[in-house]
Amino acid sequence: MMDSKKKRLVIIGGGFGGLNLARKVDKSAYDIVLIDRNNYHSFPPLYYQVASSGLEPASISFPFRRELNSRSYSGCSFRMGEVTRIDTAVRTVHTQFETVPYDELVIAAGTTNNFFGIPDLHKHVYTIKSTPEAIRCRNEVLDRLERAALCDDKRRRARLLTFVVVGGGPAGVEIAGALGEFKRYILRREYPSIRQDEMKVMIVEGSDALLRAMGPRSSADALEGLSQLMVDVCLGKTMKSYSDGVAIFADGSQVETDTVIWTAGVTGVDIALEGTEVAPGPGRRLAVDEYCRVKGLDGVYAIGDIALMETADYPHGHPQVAQAALQQGATLARNLSRPQQQWEPFRYRDKGSMATIGRNRAVVDIGKIHMSGRAAWWTWLVVHLMTLLGMRNKAVVFINWMWSYFNFSAGLRLLMRPERYPLRNHWNE
Amino acid sequence: MMDSKKKRLVIIGGGFGGLNLARKVDKSAYDIVLIDRNNYHSFPPLYYQVASSGLEPASISFPFRRELNSRSYSGCSFRMGEVTRIDTAVRTVHTQFETVPYDELVIAAGTTNNFFGIPDLHKHVYTIKSTPEAIRCRNEVLDRLERAALCDDKRRRARLLTFVVVGGGPAGVEIAGALGEFKRYILRREYPSIRQDEMKVMIVEGSDALLRAMGPRSSADALEGLSQLMVDVCLGKTMKSYSDGVAIFADGSQVETDTVIWTAGVTGVDIALEGTEVAPGPGRRLAVDEYCRVKGLDGVYAIGDIALMETADYPHGHPQVAQAALQQGATLARNLSRPQQQWEPFRYRDKGSMATIGRNRAVVDIGKIHMSGRAAWWTWLVVHLMTLLGMRNKAVVFINWMWSYFNFSAGLRLLMRPERYPLRNHWNE
Repeated sequence: MMDSKKKRLVIIGGGFGGLNLARKVDKSAYDIVLIDRNNYHSFPPLYYQVASSGLEPASISFPFRRELNSRSYSGCSFRMGEVTRIDTAVRTVHTQFETVPYDELVIAAGTTNNFFGIPDLHKHVYTIKSTPEAIRCRNEVLDRLERAALCDDKRRRARLLTFVVVGGGPAGVEIAGALGEFKRYILRREYPSIRQDEMKVMIVEGSDALLRAMGPRSSADALEGLSQLMVDVCLGKTMKSYSDGVAIFADGSQVETDTVIWTAGVTGVDIALEGTEVAPGPGRRLAVDEYCRVKGLDGVYAIGDIALMETADYPHGHPQVAQAALQQGATLARNLSRPQQQWEPFRYRDKGSMATIGRNRAVVDIGKIHMSGRAAWWTWLVVHLMTLLGMRNKAVVFINWMWSYFNFSAGLRLLMRPERYPLRNHWNE
Repeated sequence: MMDSKKKRLVIIGGGFGGLNLARKVDKSAYDIVLIDRNNYHSFPPLYYQVASSGLEPASISFPFRRELNSRSYSGCSFRMGEVTRIDTAVRTVHTQFETVPYDELVIAAGTTNNFFGIPDLHKHVYTIKSTPEAIRCRNEVLDRLERAALCDDKRRRARLLTFVVVGGGPAGVEIAGALGEFKRYILRREYPSIRQDEMKVMIVEGSDALLRAMGPRSSADALEGLSQLMVDVCLGKTMKSYSDGVAIFADGSQVETDTVIWTAGVTGVDIALEGTEVAPGPGRRLAVDEYCRVKGLDGVYAIGDIALMETADYPHGHPQVAQAALQQGATLARNLSRPQQQWEPFRYRDKGSMATIGRNRAVVDIGKIHMSGRAAWWTWLVVHLMTLLGMRNKAVVFINWMWSYFNFSAGLRLLMRPERYPLRNHWNE
């Protein structure tokens, strides 16, 4: 199958960056191998909708093999596996299953949750940085509500009905908004034994504004929108610890809660670069030059959230968003497809950013233009629908959104836990 | 909330029987409490489609609280919990969370897998008697294919690519058909490193016919349909044991396989009836009279798969299918809503049965009428769509089916395992 004259380009991670690169790179020059720990591409901007019962996981996921089967990828193959280490001396990538040799390597492995060293935090909070994490978050929130409905102990009940979202970025604002909508529109209708004022949704942000990466008007709109959805917004507040159902903040205050949703930060996925001096920089990102080449390594590139390209405009690297990953993937694809002397440096074009605050309300910043309210929500909806892979997914997501829009209700409140029979662990054979 | 003049009717299980009863019983006579271990109603006839990546779990599930919110259920409340025992002396139902008193009790808890006492079988096989089991089955099948794609060891590869379905009833035929379709239409397209003849799908049935509960023409059609989908049909063969990747059959033959899907039988869900002499009968079903009253107990009824009503027409009880449960739920609802002297005995009306064999082919028996092929498939499709709860689900399922129909491809091949972070077990607090 492999053409011996072609170079073998291995891509770690089939997110926005990796997949765009695979699509756009010259297939006559490379045999392309895509490695991902999952067998599907997923859509992080909508994880929060899975976590809040708005969408089913399959609607925001797309099997790699289906996608690679389309003509634009001909010559790409897929190998499932979690990359544990890279041996740059002999140019091999190691997964739990196999060793894959490469000529050129692109690391597009993305980021995972950053718990900022708070001890054991990862054991106690819920996160939404992957589809399985989002499903778990959904299940746990629904579990709290069902158990509160059965609970007579006042203090216990208050703990069950207190939801603390940590982090005021888009993910935090969006999940807090969805919980607020639930409180405002659904609770009374479907949980008659729980009073509306018993449910508390709180969002905690360390800085002095929500959506800090967006403009001040978006921050103000988010604050107002969440308040209307009965969310308590706490700015300038950081969590110090959380265990045994008690969240303790840096200002000394504390909150009893059984559910903390952590969206406070990300850090590069851990991949051991063996036999090199290269170590990840701030946020565990890999320092790259303006051609996305990992500094100090030959034939190794990094794109997307895991790449740290310090430029004059972006001295701390580009924002860790879909657009930056897509654009780096495209630029690198063009560069790899032509002689090195024609390579172009990466230039980020900021196409704007957006976030939803509950149903029918969003904020959009495009350059100096600011939109909010219903128009922004429809813009948000169209942009996300267009970006989703696959007609089936687009259609299903559209139906779900219209359904929720007219029913004031997220449709999929399913507490669907892992199966009851013991799982065999095939991965450690 | 509770009207003290009303009797409290507790229903265990919100399947076809329990939910139909709750809808139809006279709400002015009863306060109704529905208890279910899940927070959603699910649709067993389509579990196999979840297991074979054809539908997402949310499409065949419907949250109870949403359903009970509709006017036809006004006065029904929902309490999540798994019933561990019933104390008939003091009329209480016990779940892991609470004790619920009742005046009248309806057991509609359904059935689970029957492993016929084969040691440890439940640890090694995959089952499809609930949505989480179906999701697990989907994940494990996809896992085998991904690992086979990476495997060079010939024997290991053969084991990974051998799929044995045990049981030739509708569930077995349908899941084998779906695997056969995958082999026939999808494998070459999406798994270029696996040859079609390397994948083996086998269905094993102890009797001399598939779909034994249907007519002989349906059995013959199923046999032909599965053969066309490259499924090896083994009749008159029973599994004796399965462990360490080796399935051993009663005839002495054996097959090396990493994946056995068990659909060979069901047994009543285990509920301890404390302080009574009543014990479950054959198949762990509860013997009831023609009014669905559990024999030997006062104020306790059983309907659906778990009820064993021996009549002249059905000396071994009614078939354990949706129709019987729905009809018993309706009859019991009418009876409970009127004075006892006007009660009518249950009479089962067989509305026919059907099963699909892959895309575009099905068998339908209605009385003496037999349909097969494409017309039967469309009949099957319409009947199932009409029976599904909720417009959203109907729309999403229809899109999925049309999409698969025109693409020869099940859309949702997602290997989405339980989350990576340790789960807290809140259930044992």
